[in-house]
Amino acid sequence: MVENYLTQLLNIQFPIFQAPMAGGITTSELVAAVSNCGGLGFIGAGYMSSEQLRDQIREVKRLTSNPFGVNLFVPNEFNVSESDVNHSNKLLQPIRIQLGLAEMKSYNLPNQESSLTAFTEQIKVLVEENIPVCSFTFGLPSPEIIELLKQKNVLLIGTATTVQEAIEIEKIGMDFVVVQGSEAGGHRGNFLKGAEESLVGLMSLIPQVVDNVGIPVIAAGGIADGRGLLASLCLGAQAVQIGTAFLTCIESGAHPVYKEAIVQAQEDETVLTRAFSGKYARGINNKFIEEMREHEPYLPEFPVQNSLTQDIRKKAAAEKNTQYMSLWSGQSPRLAKVQTVQSLIQQIMGDVEITRRKF
Amino acid sequence: MVENYLTQLLNIQFPIFQAPMAGGITTSELVAAVSNCGGLGFIGAGYMSSEQLRDQIREVKRLTSNPFGVNLFVPNEFNVSESDVNHSNKLLQPIRIQLGLAEMKSYNLPNQESSLTAFTEQIKVLVEENIPVCSFTFGLPSPEIIELLKQKNVLLIGTATTVQEAIEIEKIGMDFVVVQGSEAGGHRGNFLKGAEESLVGLMSLIPQVVDNVGIPVIAAGGIADGRGLLASLCLGAQAVQIGTAFLTCIESGAHPVYKEAIVQAQEDETVLTRAFSGKYARGINNKFIEEMREHEPYLPEFPVQNSLTQDIRKKAAAEKNTQYMSLWSGQSPRLAKVQTVQSLIQQIMGDVEITRRKF
Repeated sequence: MVENYLTQLLNIQFPIFQAPMAGGITTSELVAAVSNCGGLGFIGAGYMSSEQLRDQIREVKRLTSNPFGVNLFVPNEFNVSESDVNHSNKLLQPIRIQLGLAEMKSYNLPNQESSLTAFTEQIKVLVEENIPVCSFTFGLPSPEIIELLKQKNVLLIGTATTVQEAIEIEKIGMDFVVVQGSEAGGHRGNFLKGAEESLVGLMSLIPQVVDNVGIPVIAAGGIADGRGLLASLCLGAQAVQIGTAFLTCIESGAHPVYKEAIVQAQEDETVLTRAFSGKYARGINNKFIEEMREHEPYLPEFPVQNSLTQDIRKKAAAEKNTQYMSLWSGQSPRLAKVQTVQSLIQQIMGDVEITRRKF
Repeated sequence: MVENYLTQLLNIQFPIFQAPMAGGITTSELVAAVSNCGGLGFIGAGYMSSEQLRDQIREVKRLTSNPFGVNLFVPNEFNVSESDVNHSNKLLQPIRIQLGLAEMKSYNLPNQESSLTAFTEQIKVLVEENIPVCSFTFGLPSPEIIELLKQKNVLLIGTATTVQEAIEIEKIGMDFVVVQGSEAGGHRGNFLKGAEESLVGLMSLIPQVVDNVGIPVIAAGGIADGRGLLASLCLGAQAVQIGTAFLTCIESGAHPVYKEAIVQAQEDETVLTRAFSGKYARGINNKFIEEMREHEPYLPEFPVQNSLTQDIRKKAAAEKNTQYMSLWSGQSPRLAKVQTVQSLIQQIMGDVEITRRKF
C-alpha cells in the first residue's frame, strides 16, 4: 500500500504533492482540486506579497477543507550593480522593440532588505492562517523562523538537490526533505554548490539521500504517473512532488499556449538557463534562451534579472508568443496531458495498482 | 517476480546485465562471475583487436557455461587534422613532463578505414564463437551487419539516450534497447543529437521510451542495488545494466586506486568531460579534467584524443596518481562497495525481496 508515516502525519490520502510552481500557476482551483482529490496542494507563494498570499489562502480554504501547503522562496544574498542592470537591459532592448514594448527606463528592482521584510511578512501570514505545512526553496530559513513555525506546529519541508543539502535540512530541524532530481522543471533548488554541479538524476539521488538522513524524503523531478510514483517509493521516498503534469491540468493558471507547448514537447527539448531570472531553471528551449545563451554568465543575479525580463514575458504571453515566454518543464513532457486534476490523480493511482500487481 | 520475457529469452536467472565497460575493466573473471551468479556478463570489447576478443571469449567460456554477451563500439566518422592533433599534444605536453613521460613524437593514430576493418573483424569473431548476445554503443551498425548477425541468431541490443534513438534502434531490427540515463558513468551513447542535449534522467527516460517502442527496455545509469532494479521495473524496464557497482567488485580489472576513488566519492562529484577521449563521458572530477576544461571544445574527436591521452592515463595509473587517470563513474558512487560479484548480486536480489514486500 502507498499509505505511510508521511500520509498519516499530513492527513492526506495519497502521497502526491502538487509542486509549488510560482508565478500564477497554482491557482486556488488547482491547489484545492489536488487537496480535494486526496493529494496535497501547494500555493507557490515565492513572488507573492503577504496580502496576495493571505487572499489566496482564504480563497483556497473556501474551496477545500482538506490540508494544503504553502511554498516560500528563502531570500538569497545578491549583489547587483547598476552597470550589471544596464548591461542586461541593453541585451533585452532589441527583444523589447521586437515585441513593441517601450524601453524600460525606471526600474522597480528588488533589494535585499525588502526581500527579507517580505519573507518575514509571508511567515506571519502562514502562522495567522494556521497553515499546516510550509516548504522552502533556495536555501534554509533562519533558526528563529524555524523555531517560530515549529512552536506553531507547522510541518517544515526543505528542498535539496544533493545529499549534503538534505543533511543540512535535517540538521536545522525540518520535518521532511523534497529531493529535486536533475529531471525537474523550473528553478533549481541548489544552495550549497552551483546549479550545474548539483544535477543528480533521481535514480541516484533518492537512495543516496535516504541512506543519509532520517527524515522522510519526497521525490521531485520527471514524475508524472503511477510508474514514477511507485518507482520513487521503491527507491525509498515516502511521497512524490509532481510539477509539469499538474501544470498542464485544466485548473492550473498556466497560459493555454504554454500547456500546449509542453504536451507537444519531447524529453530532450528542455534546457537549463538563467536567462529569464538570473537563477538556473529547466524549461523548453526557445528563441529567448538561444539569443541570451552567450551572455548568460554575465546576467544579474536572481531576482533582479527576473524583474528585468518581466515585461517581456508578460507581453509575449499576451501575444501567445511562446518564443519569449518562460516555458518551465521537467524532462517528462511526453507524459503530460491537458486534463482535470481528478482525472490525473485517478490515473496515477490506477497505474500504481496495475504496476504493483506485476510484482 | 522479476523473471520476464527478457530473462527467459536470454536464459538468465536475474534481469541484471553487467555493463560492458571497455578498457580492461571487464576481465574474464568479472564476466564469468556475473553469468555464473545468474546475471548476464559482458565483455567490453570496444578497444580490442579481433585476436584479443577471441582470446577473451575463449577464456570466459572456460570459466562459465552460462550465456554472456559482447559489446562493440560502432565506428564513428571523424575528421581530425594534423593541426588539431598538434594543438592537443601541446596542451598535453606539460602534463607529460610532470609525469616524467617522453614527448610524444610519432603517433599511431586511429583512422576511419582501420576502425571499420577492425569492427568487421570483431563481428566475424562473434559469429565464429557463437556469442548469443551482442550490444552496440555509439550508433547503429549497417543493415548488412544486422542481417548477418540475425541469421546467426545473435540477439542484438542498441544503446539509446533519447526516445528517438530508441525508435531508430527498434526500426533497424534490434531485439532490445539499453536506455542510458544522465546518471550513467563512462561514455555517453548519444548518436542523433549532441551529448549535452541528450542528458535525460532515468525517471523520465524509461517510461517515455517504453511508451514509444515495442522492444524490451534495459535501464542503465545510477542503478546499484535492489531498490534501483525494482524502480526500473516499475518504470517499465525489463532489466537493468549496472556499471559502477560491478567496477568496484574484486573481480573487475579496475585499478585498486580507481575503485577506492569511487567508494570515497559523493554523488555530486562526477562531471561530463571530453578531455580524455574526445567523446563526452561521466567521471569523477580531477586535475586533468579541470586543466583541460577551457580547451575542451577544441580537442580532437574520439577516438583520436583517446589515443593521444593513452600514455598519460597509463603512467598515472602506474604511479597511482588518480588526478590524471580517467575515473569513469555513474552518479551513485555512495552505493558502490569493494566486494565479490556474488555478494553484490545476492545483495541486489535480497533488497528486491525486501522492497517488494513493502507494497
